[in-house]
Amino acid sequence: MEQLKKITLTEQEMPTQWYNIVADMPTRPLPPLNPATREPATREDFYPIFARELVEQEFSTEAFIEIPEEVQALYRMWRPTPLVRAYGLEKALDTPAHIYFKNESTSMAGSHKPNTAIPQAYYNYRQGIRRLTTETGGGQWGSALSFAARHFGMDLTVFMVRVSYGQKPYRGLMMRTWGAEVVPSPSTRTAAGRRVLEHEPESPGSLGIAVSEAVEMAAGDPETNYAIGSVMNHVLLHQTVIGEEALRQMEKAGEAPDVVIGCFGGGSNFAGIAFPFLRERLRGRMATRIVAVEPESCPKLTQGEFRYDYGDEAGLTPLFPMYTLGHDFTPAAIHAGGLRYHGAGSLVSQLLKDGLVEAADMPQLETFEAGVLFARTEGIIPAPESTHAIAQAIREARRAREEGRRETILFNLSGHGLVDLYAYEQYFAGRLR
Amino acid sequence: MEQLKKITLTEQEMPTQWYNIVADMPTRPLPPLNPATREPATREDFYPIFARELVEQEFSTEAFIEIPEEVQALYRMWRPTPLVRAYGLEKALDTPAHIYFKNESTSMAGSHKPNTAIPQAYYNYRQGIRRLTTETGGGQWGSALSFAARHFGMDLTVFMVRVSYGQKPYRGLMMRTWGAEVVPSPSTRTAAGRRVLEHEPESPGSLGIAVSEAVEMAAGDPETNYAIGSVMNHVLLHQTVIGEEALRQMEKAGEAPDVVIGCFGGGSNFAGIAFPFLRERLRGRMATRIVAVEPESCPKLTQGEFRYDYGDEAGLTPLFPMYTLGHDFTPAAIHAGGLRYHGAGSLVSQLLKDGLVEAADMPQLETFEAGVLFARTEGIIPAPESTHAIAQAIREARRAREEGRRETILFNLSGHGLVDLYAYEQYFAGRLR
Repeated sequence: MEQLKKITLTEQEMPTQWYNIVADMPTRPLPPLNPATREPATREDFYPIFARELVEQEFSTEAFIEIPEEVQALYRMWRPTPLVRAYGLEKALDTPAHIYFKNESTSMAGSHKPNTAIPQAYYNYRQGIRRLTTETGGGQWGSALSFAARHFGMDLTVFMVRVSYGQKPYRGLMMRTWGAEVVPSPSTRTAAGRRVLEHEPESPGSLGIAVSEAVEMAAGDPETNYAIGSVMNHVLLHQTVIGEEALRQMEKAGEAPDVVIGCFGGGSNFAGIAFPFLRERLRGRMATRIVAVEPESCPKLTQGEFRYDYGDEAGLTPLFPMYTLGHDFTPAAIHAGGLRYHGAGSLVSQLLKDGLVEAADMPQLETFEAGVLFARTEGIIPAPESTHAIAQAIREARRAREEGRRETILFNLSGHGLVDLYAYEQYFAGRLR
Repeated sequence: MEQLKKITLTEQEMPTQWYNIVADMPTRPLPPLNPATREPATREDFYPIFARELVEQEFSTEAFIEIPEEVQALYRMWRPTPLVRAYGLEKALDTPAHIYFKNESTSMAGSHKPNTAIPQAYYNYRQGIRRLTTETGGGQWGSALSFAARHFGMDLTVFMVRVSYGQKPYRGLMMRTWGAEVVPSPSTRTAAGRRVLEHEPESPGSLGIAVSEAVEMAAGDPETNYAIGSVMNHVLLHQTVIGEEALRQMEKAGEAPDVVIGCFGGGSNFAGIAFPFLRERLRGRMATRIVAVEPESCPKLTQGEFRYDYGDEAGLTPLFPMYTLGHDFTPAAIHAGGLRYHGAGSLVSQLLKDGLVEAADMPQLETFEAGVLFARTEGIIPAPESTHAIAQAIREARRAREEGRRETILFNLSGHGLVDLYAYEQYFAGRLR
């Protein structure tokens, strides 16, 4: 019998609970603050734009939260996702390391984002909300929410960072095919957008600005809520299905990872793969390292400051404790649009501060080099975001070879890059630095 | 327990043999003819541009042919593919029918094409061939072969039909990311291309012309062979892994299909899903109908003539018995580039002539309408080719509702449309007829 290429689970083996790491954190994260009073924000502060059940989850300290049956049924459209042994990449690197990746690119939107898009749409729908707004950077989140909103018969307006809107025309088309409205941000639709355009008519936009626009639109209408693709606790919570599946799959493979790697924008795919493994470590059942990989040009984890900051450019959100480059930071127009965010979510920020996770930064050229090697050895053209995790896995595999250690490396392939091929074209043309 | 959304197989349950329908055909297909002598072509006529093992398969009358271990290992990169119950689509159609689809969009190239790209590259590599040439219409075949050739360290030149090259820039980028050379056809690289350009400098190209170019280049160099994405017996043979898996999966689901549907260009994805079910019918174990769906604008099955014709525009290939619109037919520039071919493969042509399979034609607008409904209910944006099968499945499901029959419908989702979103843009803009 040949060794398995993919370690799979049946639909019956899928996790039925999300994991909330707050329950196991040695230091609980500081509370968000009401921006007006600077007092700890209450659930009520979030109700105007978030479904109540999501706010409950945001504040929860329970370790496990049941996944509603209807969400489980929708997860089964593409989950469980395969855990893949990267034999081809291992061979190309001539490494003694075993490299595994969790393939989250197999969803309808081509990324991990539907894991939270579906429950967010579900809870809002259940509460009678008719319309959602959101922002999107690379477009993965906006695509995922477009399908989810459509499934529950809700309208959706997506504010897409202008530079990504131009770089990734197919992302807008995906969202429209699923029936969403897509608006390049900054736009004239909101006060926040107009203010930016006044000062900088050619503004490339940023996730921070797009969040401001989406939040402003949701806040102005009781039948409209806002949905967010990363950063907040409830989003990271939903993504833990990735790691819960991967835990069972690594067990089936008979291996425990020495290192677990995720690329890092706001924290959602990283937390998704990492938190269940980190729980095992915190509970003394595993000794794995956990590494978050960010772009060199947006280095909040490695060079940011730990302090309270806004989640958006205009300062409409509560203040969150985070590693931040400042909420008015406009990152360079690198192609990993999903990683171009000024701050890190509170949970990961606290874990980093406490030394429980590591951070690494990665130059853009190294990420594309890794992406092309991966495409040619494992067949999947990765999203520019995911190439950051691949590049770190390659660094770890090379280190293992130098040290002569048979390590086990696990990374999250958060998405494929078929809708981001323009970025590869630029790379091949030598136009990237 | 909820009903399963996906019926899956383990890697251990994958078929280890391809199925060759010639063994079960009541009328064997007429032989190909040497174009010079008009005598039945021999194996030797094919050796200059095809690997010997592939020629063996082309002429074989054995029912089952072993899949080499190395090919099986590569299939495991994405196979077995899921069989999915289209609950969302059923609900939208309010039909008593059960609709299943085989999801071939989960491969690295996003379609069923790697099923034959990998064995073709493998047999050529084993024979010491250094370089392959091929043609591609929609780009799915060219993409798949790009990865396969790269895996075995072979160079690849892809002649891509010019109109598709313009409509689908991302397809060219995929091929380049995997390391292939992509040339819009007709080109000045070959005599066949130059001749077309002389008469029609703005020629949009056709699959027939692109085949001529690829064949001419391969014929001129002993270290170069030609690979083909559809039509020929050995290609259809390799694709039967689709139907062999689907047979096992339908059995797991406890259902037998009343109708099996595939879109039809040259016959590869259609034969892939259909032939194993047709075998069961020919052997008296099943009573399923089999339907091939072609575009209204390229109606060789429904309106073509059954006769000997060339596989390419310039008449470089042997003559094959086929339903054909004439080898110099240039189809309209519809978006289902993979279906724009003048002829049908010999096997399907003979089966159609003998009344063992049915054919239907489909107008372009109905296919996109079906594609958008599928995207919004099942989450997957289908390739323009695959929308033809979906549109037929919808017709069958509506008929079942009218007749009050609880039928079981199975279609092949041959690929996703993420790299073909321009076509959807044109559809939404009302620019398609």
